[in-house]
Amino acid sequence: MNLSTQPYKGARDFYPEDKRLQKYMFGIWRKVAEQFGYEEYDAPILEPLELYLAKTGEEIVSEQTYTFTDRGGRQVAIRPEMTPTVSRMVAAKRQELAYPLRWYSVPNLWRYERPQRGRLREHWQLNVDIFGVDGLLAEAEIIQVANGILKTAGATQSMYTIRVNSRKLMDFILKDYLELDSVQRHMIAKLIDRMHKVSHEAFMAESHAIFTPTQREKGASNKLIGLLKTKDLNHLPEVVRSHSAAMELKELFKLLKDAGVENAIFDLSIMRGFDYYTGIVFEVYDENPDNNRSMLGGGRYDGLVGLFGVDPVPTVGFGFGDVTLQNFLEGHKLLPPERSDTDIYAVVIGQTYGPALRAIQEMRDMGLNVAVDITGRKIDKQIQTAVKKNIHYAIFIGEKELSEEQFEIKNLVTGVSERHSLARIVSIVKDYRGASEEE
Amino acid sequence: MNLSTQPYKGARDFYPEDKRLQKYMFGIWRKVAEQFGYEEYDAPILEPLELYLAKTGEEIVSEQTYTFTDRGGRQVAIRPEMTPTVSRMVAAKRQELAYPLRWYSVPNLWRYERPQRGRLREHWQLNVDIFGVDGLLAEAEIIQVANGILKTAGATQSMYTIRVNSRKLMDFILKDYLELDSVQRHMIAKLIDRMHKVSHEAFMAESHAIFTPTQREKGASNKLIGLLKTKDLNHLPEVVRSHSAAMELKELFKLLKDAGVENAIFDLSIMRGFDYYTGIVFEVYDENPDNNRSMLGGGRYDGLVGLFGVDPVPTVGFGFGDVTLQNFLEGHKLLPPERSDTDIYAVVIGQTYGPALRAIQEMRDMGLNVAVDITGRKIDKQIQTAVKKNIHYAIFIGEKELSEEQFEIKNLVTGVSERHSLARIVSIVKDYRGASEEE
Repeated sequence: MNLSTQPYKGARDFYPEDKRLQKYMFGIWRKVAEQFGYEEYDAPILEPLELYLAKTGEEIVSEQTYTFTDRGGRQVAIRPEMTPTVSRMVAAKRQELAYPLRWYSVPNLWRYERPQRGRLREHWQLNVDIFGVDGLLAEAEIIQVANGILKTAGATQSMYTIRVNSRKLMDFILKDYLELDSVQRHMIAKLIDRMHKVSHEAFMAESHAIFTPTQREKGASNKLIGLLKTKDLNHLPEVVRSHSAAMELKELFKLLKDAGVENAIFDLSIMRGFDYYTGIVFEVYDENPDNNRSMLGGGRYDGLVGLFGVDPVPTVGFGFGDVTLQNFLEGHKLLPPERSDTDIYAVVIGQTYGPALRAIQEMRDMGLNVAVDITGRKIDKQIQTAVKKNIHYAIFIGEKELSEEQFEIKNLVTGVSERHSLARIVSIVKDYRGASEEE
Repeated sequence: MNLSTQPYKGARDFYPEDKRLQKYMFGIWRKVAEQFGYEEYDAPILEPLELYLAKTGEEIVSEQTYTFTDRGGRQVAIRPEMTPTVSRMVAAKRQELAYPLRWYSVPNLWRYERPQRGRLREHWQLNVDIFGVDGLLAEAEIIQVANGILKTAGATQSMYTIRVNSRKLMDFILKDYLELDSVQRHMIAKLIDRMHKVSHEAFMAESHAIFTPTQREKGASNKLIGLLKTKDLNHLPEVVRSHSAAMELKELFKLLKDAGVENAIFDLSIMRGFDYYTGIVFEVYDENPDNNRSMLGGGRYDGLVGLFGVDPVPTVGFGFGDVTLQNFLEGHKLLPPERSDTDIYAVVIGQTYGPALRAIQEMRDMGLNVAVDITGRKIDKQIQTAVKKNIHYAIFIGEKELSEEQFEIKNLVTGVSERHSLARIVSIVKDYRGASEEE
């Protein structure tokens, strides 16, 4: 019986053309994070299971996480998210680290779920976190980083919206303004979290069922839906908009405007799935009508580092997945042009491989990426291979060329050939590469 | 009870300083692989277990691989090596791909073993493979890539030795020259594979026990040890050195010399652990007396792609682990200097964060990595943080500076301050970065 060539279900093979796109996206993530002074860290993909039991939503650990028992009897998880890990790492060096601490990572994450558009079992996710800052400048910066990534990827601000909410404001509304008990609050929060996935009628019916008869008489469902639809802080009821959490949101929008982020809006329906958020939360929505969904999200979570027995550290962060970024780029036609990383394809004439290898190594030492055809096939077959690989130039190296130190270089797109020294050829190819990288 | 801050046993957390070194090593791997025209690919860290049952050494799958059963009842492995995966991917697109195919990857791999120096449960490994070339030029190129990596990392050829052997020559010696049956051959091969880990006496005793009395009378043990110690093909017995596999080795050494690789030697004791090799095999040894061990290895394995029910594809490749490379760099004092990726630390004077953020964003748009202190602490505290983070410059931004468009830049190493426009400051910092990158 033959072995299957399929990858594991819900996960992806990255052939070079796929990997090139992924590297392009990772490159933007890294570039922008580093522009803001963030440093990359990493950690093992396996973590003790207990790391996820404390604060992550229950559902995620019990049903969606890959877990197993290792040969030493330890319960192990394949990490479903990076936040518990980074909190663990900060806690381990709580005293030594210099705050504000700006860290980012691009971990591979796994969730056991039914594969669907934008949600695979396996993905990569940029995680950006700032530790040690209480004030709103941290939230403003984190949102600026997310915004900077989309800008660097070529997006205009009309292509996406940054929706911002406050867990504190939400708590006030549910507890004090709507007067819900803790069980009701939990149920309503879960309902709001999936609000965009259910119809208006279903939402009304479900919320109605959660309220008590007295609350219903006071029109709680309508009050709630009215609040959830308010996109302007000034249109909130007086008692809500004068709450300190609402004032804080107002200040955040001002800071974002100062920093050039124009498309952040207030949205009380942004809840975020995880239990660990403690303040501002936000999500960035793709405004593509064919893909109008949340691309990334984050917020303030001041309590996680403290779970490891050290003093808590105020923290704000976000995560941005590779699949959702790719969908965004595809939807807005922002994918980079296809281009080989190999600059030139060397065709060796005759069997002069020994001396040819030396000339080829010289080109590499001068900074070119050079693939050499070592199949000994006919020259036109070798050229066909170079074309199929999207390589822009070919160089022909034979005995005559080596003794005269003049080589034929062929532009495989235009078909034009020229004869030059090796140094001149390297400079021609570098000029082309420089120009095409600036495109 | 507090959560533990320790990572999973045998695996590593990468704090920014650790990650910086890893990125430096990955950068060299990628640069050299691409210089030779190799393209990066990737695949899921989880694979169906059956992928490893066919050709990997039994011991590795049964005792050393992380395996579990998923919720769908599938047997899954966390990949212990990349070769079966890349063979699977090539087989899946056997007809569409353009040969010679040059692929590389930097996968994260896991093995369940007792953690020890240079061998952790988890590591990263550069995998470089060329598909579709029968001739020795493939072996020569693969060894050139390995050599190019060490050269690019700053190593001289006296720091390491490339030891080359041939499975075909070994087969001839064991079967035809020493006349061993298949059980004996298997046992002797395993013994040779761990030859460098046992004493000469133990080796002699163990080999003696494998031979028959007749073979012993003919001096099989001495014959074998004599062969294993021969480092020159010309010193092999006539019948061995005239075998086609020995001629092939001779040709390979000539090709390597042509390509500038001077430190490749013949070594019949190089076996490689995996069963799938079919021709030339090689290992690169660190010549550091404190760490005289194999750093990387590879060879020809023509049979793996064919296991997936397609026509076989001749293949040569090698793997190079991050831990062994790091030990090599440390041992030879080749570690890169410590340097922050953040170019400048912005200190905001007063509470002018809004306008300051705009000036900071301008510096980023001009190409600098800028971290801004948003703690509101005293200025000397902010500077201390910048110094602790190894950042070379600080810029001071207050109301006066913003209105005059002249800012103070301080070199945190020399202590010298100057006043300049933002554009001039950017150019000073870029000049410094350019110079320090060339170091």
